[in-house]
Amino acid sequence: MRVSVLGVGLIGGSIGLAAKSRADASVTGFDSDPAAVAHARSLGAVDDAAASVEQACSEAEIVVCAGPVDRLEELVAAALEASGDECAVTDVGSVKRHLADRFAAQGRFVGGHPLAGIESVGVQGAREDLFDGARWFLTPEGETEGVLYDRLQRFVSVLGARPQAIEPAEHDRLMATVSHLPHLFANVLVGRAAGSSQGEALPEVGPSFRDAARVAGENPALWADIYLRNADEIAAEADAAADRLKEMAKAIRAGDRDALEQWQEQAAQQRRSLLEGDLVGGPLVEVRVLVRNSPGVMAEIALALGKARVNIEDMALYPVSDMSSGAISLFVSGDEDAERALECVAELGHEAIKVSR
Amino acid sequence: MRVSVLGVGLIGGSIGLAAKSRADASVTGFDSDPAAVAHARSLGAVDDAAASVEQACSEAEIVVCAGPVDRLEELVAAALEASGDECAVTDVGSVKRHLADRFAAQGRFVGGHPLAGIESVGVQGAREDLFDGARWFLTPEGETEGVLYDRLQRFVSVLGARPQAIEPAEHDRLMATVSHLPHLFANVLVGRAAGSSQGEALPEVGPSFRDAARVAGENPALWADIYLRNADEIAAEADAAADRLKEMAKAIRAGDRDALEQWQEQAAQQRRSLLEGDLVGGPLVEVRVLVRNSPGVMAEIALALGKARVNIEDMALYPVSDMSSGAISLFVSGDEDAERALECVAELGHEAIKVSR
Repeated sequence: MRVSVLGVGLIGGSIGLAAKSRADASVTGFDSDPAAVAHARSLGAVDDAAASVEQACSEAEIVVCAGPVDRLEELVAAALEASGDECAVTDVGSVKRHLADRFAAQGRFVGGHPLAGIESVGVQGAREDLFDGARWFLTPEGETEGVLYDRLQRFVSVLGARPQAIEPAEHDRLMATVSHLPHLFANVLVGRAAGSSQGEALPEVGPSFRDAARVAGENPALWADIYLRNADEIAAEADAAADRLKEMAKAIRAGDRDALEQWQEQAAQQRRSLLEGDLVGGPLVEVRVLVRNSPGVMAEIALALGKARVNIEDMALYPVSDMSSGAISLFVSGDEDAERALECVAELGHEAIKVSR
Repeated sequence: MRVSVLGVGLIGGSIGLAAKSRADASVTGFDSDPAAVAHARSLGAVDDAAASVEQACSEAEIVVCAGPVDRLEELVAAALEASGDECAVTDVGSVKRHLADRFAAQGRFVGGHPLAGIESVGVQGAREDLFDGARWFLTPEGETEGVLYDRLQRFVSVLGARPQAIEPAEHDRLMATVSHLPHLFANVLVGRAAGSSQGEALPEVGPSFRDAARVAGENPALWADIYLRNADEIAAEADAAADRLKEMAKAIRAGDRDALEQWQEQAAQQRRSLLEGDLVGGPLVEVRVLVRNSPGVMAEIALALGKARVNIEDMALYPVSDMSSGAISLFVSGDEDAERALECVAELGHEAIKVSR
């Protein structure tokens, strides 16, 4: 199989590595930055470096457009132009509808979005196994040529991912909720806090603030593009969230304790069903360990859990104030693992408790 | 010094331990659950177990009310009633104004709020050093007796905390922003996502969702009380956040790329000044390591960083889909530590990059 990758960053490079070793493909790479293709070639992520999109695409059976979000339309247009009638063209961008609107009618384009990788990382982070087990959305439509869609779906599976067909509009709505909205919240949160703190640092803020604010202001150029490309879904999501907050404000002012407790319980239930559906050992259980936040402690604990075969599914550090001490929350799957984690931590001489949620 | 602690959970028990060993105090404990006081006594957190609030307070110089939020008004009233004219009464609740409104006029009550500890943890987690370096808000007012305030402030310092005077209303406003609002956001987020996903699990959601949703539905009974006690500030905060989201929706719909990028940059700046003001080594730098999320890897990395004297200030796990692989984000203080972290991780054979934010 002849695969072309246009844009060889983390995603493009990883596709190249996996396509070569798992699909036995010959991979041609193109990047507007020639040094990036050269680097990709030295890493074994591409066989050949093409000097132009035309050169990259002319013989390809699959073209993957993996450039930055704001360049994708242009890349896909060039790829469709330069590739043959039996070549499938796809992309890996995080917004899908604008591409589908423009290109789906051609039948050879099917948008894609692997949920893996980090945008701001270059080809040096590329790995053959980046997509193992990852969801990879594909957006076929009525006009899509079946044989080409089939080829793409198999290709994505061979790379290690789990392909899932989704309508472009539904994809963008889902991303607006689960990915874009948290970024808006983070920005609102730091804006509100900056107003409250009058410019001073808030070293003593709690873990809920740190967790929610972590993505505030992430990668301005990339995010400005995402806001623009998925504008109406993100704006609709922001409006809906705002309406919900207004309702909450009303309920809180009304002071109906039962309603507030019920609402909190419903959120707990929603959180569990959203995040813990697939865990083998059962719902996440939080084990909180009170420790000095010194370099060695976390290692010691993680090592002990590793030896006891307890996998840490998620974790959060809760440093207090000067970070001289704090808590580590370890989320493990199911009560059995939680009990083993408690034993391990106790053996190390730390206090730990299972936190009821 | 004779100190009484009413309510011996994590906070009350830790106050007892620290007061005994650092202030050489004799500590009397009371709890509506007699087993909790007995446990506290067996842990050395109190010298004597009192059978009633009256018995606990009659000889005290300082009474600390450390019961649950919804019991505090009642406890403070009983403590003021039962204690002598020269006894200072304080509390450790996370909402301050309603107590100040009712009790500050008496001059012997000064509200308090240590930013340490976790509500749902019992006395078994108590530690002498829980408050080391932690901010401890105190809310003196015009009527406060100077000598009693001075006693409380010294006491809090001896426990290891950093006392800071703040007006009750300002305290509650600050908490509404930095602590209560993130909880509202988390609840809205899981509610929106539950609507989008139609009840299915979202194992593939990104790290921004996981981080922001972590506190959704936390401890319904406790949070219902917090919403009620700080109702107007939280409702005002929710309304203000809603207004900001509506503005954002408008800006996103307007599609002014420069404005959106600028807004993202402002959020990044606000995040930095809020969270990184006090870090010795400089602003947080994110080092992202691409790894298998197997039990041993995190330990190995943490251990290597520990040996290289690189402290991990914050971290986040970014598991993908089935959690078979993912990324660990390590936040370290300053570029120097980041470079050392990169070296350590490279020596272990993992790919790592410094993420530009």
